[in-house]
Amino acid sequence: VGAASWRIGLIGCGHIGGSLALALRAAGRAARVIGWDVDPGAAARALELGLVDEVASGGVAGAAASADVVVLAVPVAAIGPVAAAAAGALAPDAVIMDVGSVKTEPVAAGEAAAAAAGRAGRFVGAHPMAGSERSGPDAAEVALFRGRVAIVTPTAATAPDALETVRALWRAAGAHVVEMAPDAHDRAVAAVSHLPHVIAFSLAALVNAEPGLAGLAGPSYASATRVAASPPGAWAALLTANRAALLPWLDRFGERLSALRAALAAGDEKAVRALLEARDGV
Amino acid sequence: VGAASWRIGLIGCGHIGGSLALALRAAGRAARVIGWDVDPGAAARALELGLVDEVASGGVAGAAASADVVVLAVPVAAIGPVAAAAAGALAPDAVIMDVGSVKTEPVAAGEAAAAAAGRAGRFVGAHPMAGSERSGPDAAEVALFRGRVAIVTPTAATAPDALETVRALWRAAGAHVVEMAPDAHDRAVAAVSHLPHVIAFSLAALVNAEPGLAGLAGPSYASATRVAASPPGAWAALLTANRAALLPWLDRFGERLSALRAALAAGDEKAVRALLEARDGV
Repeated sequence: VGAASWRIGLIGCGHIGGSLALALRAAGRAARVIGWDVDPGAAARALELGLVDEVASGGVAGAAASADVVVLAVPVAAIGPVAAAAAGALAPDAVIMDVGSVKTEPVAAGEAAAAAAGRAGRFVGAHPMAGSERSGPDAAEVALFRGRVAIVTPTAATAPDALETVRALWRAAGAHVVEMAPDAHDRAVAAVSHLPHVIAFSLAALVNAEPGLAGLAGPSYASATRVAASPPGAWAALLTANRAALLPWLDRFGERLSALRAALAAGDEKAVRALLEARDGV
Repeated sequence: VGAASWRIGLIGCGHIGGSLALALRAAGRAARVIGWDVDPGAAARALELGLVDEVASGGVAGAAASADVVVLAVPVAAIGPVAAAAAGALAPDAVIMDVGSVKTEPVAAGEAAAAAAGRAGRFVGAHPMAGSERSGPDAAEVALFRGRVAIVTPTAATAPDALETVRALWRAAGAHVVEMAPDAHDRAVAAVSHLPHVIAFSLAALVNAEPGLAGLAGPSYASATRVAASPPGAWAALLTANRAALLPWLDRFGERLSALRAALAAGDEKAVRALLEARDGV
């Protein structure tokens, strides 16, 4: 028997949602992709680019009604409300999955919305550790998730078959699936994604405050600030939503910088070296 | 008339020195490259890879004796002593150039060494804003400097023809030449190169202190920590040598992080967004 092929309701046709649609289509696992976007121009562009087969005429509910899997590729603050709109139209054995970079509150909101619509257990949180500083349908990449980790965050409420569908979907897109609790996800992602973004934006702000300086930069600055080209609005929302997990990491990062500062101020090259060597773990 | 072709004495056959030799050879501007390295294995490997035409038998002086340009691609602490060894064997109209990432003290030491050997004005400081986290002869890349900035740091003591030779050499390697005073260089490079390295090492140390965390990371972490794979010994020396210029930038970076921390702690998404948007300059 062949692998399952899903009808996808894609809510949000941007960089992540569009890339997932492309990956599933390329793998022959998307029977049909019905897209919708709060920005009609983005949905039209996704259709033009072949990311979706059609644009839903009935909004979120229209895209969700005939779907096996509804993918919410929307800002984290929208996950609860959009899950509610999708759940109201959802087939009993279909699944709603989000792809947001914060999980604790959005998953709780998504689960509550599904339960309120009589679809308890059909919402599953997910977050692919992939992406770039680009955004919008034109940034969709078929191989974006290939070889990347996709974190899936089931809870006690999650229906086992819904979880298995979400796992299979990410494997079909080329990702390695890792399961974590929503709060463990938020703490880990604060360190390996949110903190690097804070750093990149802050370094770019510092350097660009002085005209001419960035023009002298080489590849180390380019790498360090690459993701500072990401949309500030979306990132302000993410960072604020995950601030409880992020703040302790920011403090610990500040302590690392302070230790290096002290060693440098003392001219203690040996101590500086030991702090640099800690990059391999302690 | 054709462009000048130089006999190069290459002291230090690693990533930067080897790449410069390759670039000049590829451009048809290296009549001969005579290499030497404190590590005989590195010199032998450079010969094997075709970075140099021969390995000097007489050490630094042997490589310098017949050179038009002696390139010192050595750690910054070695620039003064190695310049002294080269200057003693240098032809009167030849040039000694370093490629170090710190300029004030090394240039002063190089100039003093040249003057002491009767070659006043023949030492010229330079620093290409290029490189990678790799090191050694095997990391040499012919296009490493193409389209990059090469900072040249003449002083009142620099002979005009020596400066012109150094400028022409970097242009031949594909770089855009920018002239700066040594102390202005050190301040700028502290911001756009040394600080990004401090950040990368510190973030990698933080994440790698917790087993399993780095395995969850996506491309933002990979970019942010790429240069943390650089050699800690060499970087400890550079950062310590340039600490006077680096410390104020570290403090200013810490202030940016603190401002973002305060906005996050207050849950003030609008303030967070304004701080992220500052990446475009103020």
